[in-house]
Amino acid sequence: MPANDRVLLISADCHAGPLPDTIRGYVAPKYREVFDAWLADQAGMLARRAEHTGEAIYGDEAMADFEVEKAVGQGGMDGAWDSKRRLTEIEQDGIVAEVIFPGGTFQTISPFGSGLMTYQYAQDEAIWWEGCRSYNRWLADFCNEVKGRRAGVGLITIDDIPRAVAEVEWLRANGVFGGIVLPVDTNGHPFYNHPRYEPLWSVCEALEMPIHTHSGWTPNYGRHDGSLGIFLYEISWFAHRPFHFLIWSGVFERHPRLKFVMTEQGSSWVVGALQTLDSQYALPMFRHLRRKLPRKPSEYYHQNAFIGAAFMDDTAATQRYEIGVDKLMWGSDYPHIEGTWPHTAAKLEQAFAGVPRAEAAQMLGGNAARVYGFDVEALSALAARIGPMQEKLGR
Amino acid sequence: MPANDRVLLISADCHAGPLPDTIRGYVAPKYREVFDAWLADQAGMLARRAEHTGEAIYGDEAMADFEVEKAVGQGGMDGAWDSKRRLTEIEQDGIVAEVIFPGGTFQTISPFGSGLMTYQYAQDEAIWWEGCRSYNRWLADFCNEVKGRRAGVGLITIDDIPRAVAEVEWLRANGVFGGIVLPVDTNGHPFYNHPRYEPLWSVCEALEMPIHTHSGWTPNYGRHDGSLGIFLYEISWFAHRPFHFLIWSGVFERHPRLKFVMTEQGSSWVVGALQTLDSQYALPMFRHLRRKLPRKPSEYYHQNAFIGAAFMDDTAATQRYEIGVDKLMWGSDYPHIEGTWPHTAAKLEQAFAGVPRAEAAQMLGGNAARVYGFDVEALSALAARIGPMQEKLGR
Repeated sequence: MPANDRVLLISADCHAGPLPDTIRGYVAPKYREVFDAWLADQAGMLARRAEHTGEAIYGDEAMADFEVEKAVGQGGMDGAWDSKRRLTEIEQDGIVAEVIFPGGTFQTISPFGSGLMTYQYAQDEAIWWEGCRSYNRWLADFCNEVKGRRAGVGLITIDDIPRAVAEVEWLRANGVFGGIVLPVDTNGHPFYNHPRYEPLWSVCEALEMPIHTHSGWTPNYGRHDGSLGIFLYEISWFAHRPFHFLIWSGVFERHPRLKFVMTEQGSSWVVGALQTLDSQYALPMFRHLRRKLPRKPSEYYHQNAFIGAAFMDDTAATQRYEIGVDKLMWGSDYPHIEGTWPHTAAKLEQAFAGVPRAEAAQMLGGNAARVYGFDVEALSALAARIGPMQEKLGR
Repeated sequence: MPANDRVLLISADCHAGPLPDTIRGYVAPKYREVFDAWLADQAGMLARRAEHTGEAIYGDEAMADFEVEKAVGQGGMDGAWDSKRRLTEIEQDGIVAEVIFPGGTFQTISPFGSGLMTYQYAQDEAIWWEGCRSYNRWLADFCNEVKGRRAGVGLITIDDIPRAVAEVEWLRANGVFGGIVLPVDTNGHPFYNHPRYEPLWSVCEALEMPIHTHSGWTPNYGRHDGSLGIFLYEISWFAHRPFHFLIWSGVFERHPRLKFVMTEQGSSWVVGALQTLDSQYALPMFRHLRRKLPRKPSEYYHQNAFIGAAFMDDTAATQRYEIGVDKLMWGSDYPHIEGTWPHTAAKLEQAFAGVPRAEAAQMLGGNAARVYGFDVEALSALAARIGPMQEKLGR
């Protein structure tokens, strides 16, 4: 913790992505031609995206409404790829360390579409895989530029589990990764209660690599009325859908030290979900199931789960005791403009107004330090200089 | 309302289904051979069902745990098809009228698998359709045996919308139907924000036929660990998934008198869902969407939606003001033994302990009478004789 009256602030949800010219150098030579063709097909990419969400998320009318031009006019989102600029802006926002997910901006590219929307459309699995690999290689370098302050969340596909396991080992050996993103769709393979995934759970537990789901993927809706609203509402459900598959199939029973982090999908669903799961667990017809699964779903939640970047609405603060003060990890969503950047201090004041300071400190940095292994002592001096004033946060 | 101190009790969620020999007579002659082959393939039916839920719901170990044999020993579930027995048992339970959904018991048959699990597996659409039609013809006769006290909920498929519209007209003309079940899956067709469904919404609004979703369908899970738990958890989400498609695509804006009833899928999700939908509706990026959709999602909920058989857990009673005292309709789930039958009076005492009596009366019968057009005056004499004692219900 900082020595003075400032808070050690870690964002458990930021986004970064490379520029097209940059990522090209990270794509394996044998895939460069495919990459160039893919990149040249801008119209095709936009069409696939629109087919998926129904409307381009930052496009057309929505884009004007989003006043994104204004944001770009004010400095834009170049911090998504510009390491130096990013560092300045993050520090201006009071943040000493960050967890980095993929996530597009206008200028950056998601190689072959891989990232939070992996498996969004049909494409050779080798292409999806190369998209993940090239992104991971780029992210390793990006995180290494500010070692100890950037924890990258690596990408995998799940078509070939031994290959995914090897990638987790590569990410861990690299030293700057804070876990992996689990694809929310399984590309036609069985969903996550199937035993085929067991080696993946094992390696993530053994190597202390948290498994994340992050909102982004949904089924395709086509361009019909209201699709954007439906997309935005459903990304949360589909992002935490794997969670109850892991509970019921005993993954958390077999892997008590596995960390499962659900990021940017709200937290208003948590309390109701645990109540329902626990009451179904107690049903007479589940007696045979309870023999295999000795503990209630909520106990596995408290043992294995964490909630990232859940302060978009009020429920995280008001329901913190039920969700768990030790579970919630704040995130700024930088450089996305729907997050708190560049007004984090003011927005934190508002969000944490009713929260005791010690609890706020946990949710603003303590929990993330523990989950991702950030060195709190090493970060304290910086936090004492740039962190938000403690007296303004909580009571 | 009953003249004396008893409550007029209507169950908004009961189930009925025909015996195999009975339904055979309702299957159109040209489909009888197909029906016989389908019926003979008991092993295939069970296998398809197990593939769907992961484990047979009432089967194997789960069945022993369910102590269903005991229930059968006590009198069984013959009321699913035995009209006279059903009437006696319903009245013993204090109920004067009921809304009837499909739903299997051991002896009864769901023709060609149609019902709450329509589209569960691949099958010619003409076969699904004949399954719905034959069930509807049987249900019409079944309801007509006790006219004014049984509102059947008819089945449709959505492969051919003009055909579905004609079926809604047939059901309405028949006089004993209280609406239709909307399939929770769309058999490969676009989901419910697509304009192709517009004639269906129109006819249901014009003919005052409430549209229902009822828990039952989920994606296939295969027979892996925990599938039964996953199935039971997810049937609720998939059952009310069409609801936000209808909100966002403006169906409720265009059809203010359409009634949309979500039955046997709990109610713990309602408050959180409306909060999330309303806060997303207010996002700056939705300005263009608000031009088409002048009101908040929660306003469409209060205008169009109803919640059936939501008293399986405590949230319906404790959150009744947020969910809406005018929205909640109790149901016994007869003859399923996970419902309140045959101990309805005792269970109601418990569930409504903290609820003012006038509100309890609304949720126990008043709302259902309004939604389904039951003649309260005509039912009052019976209610005054068999209804649960008012002094024991609520405060």
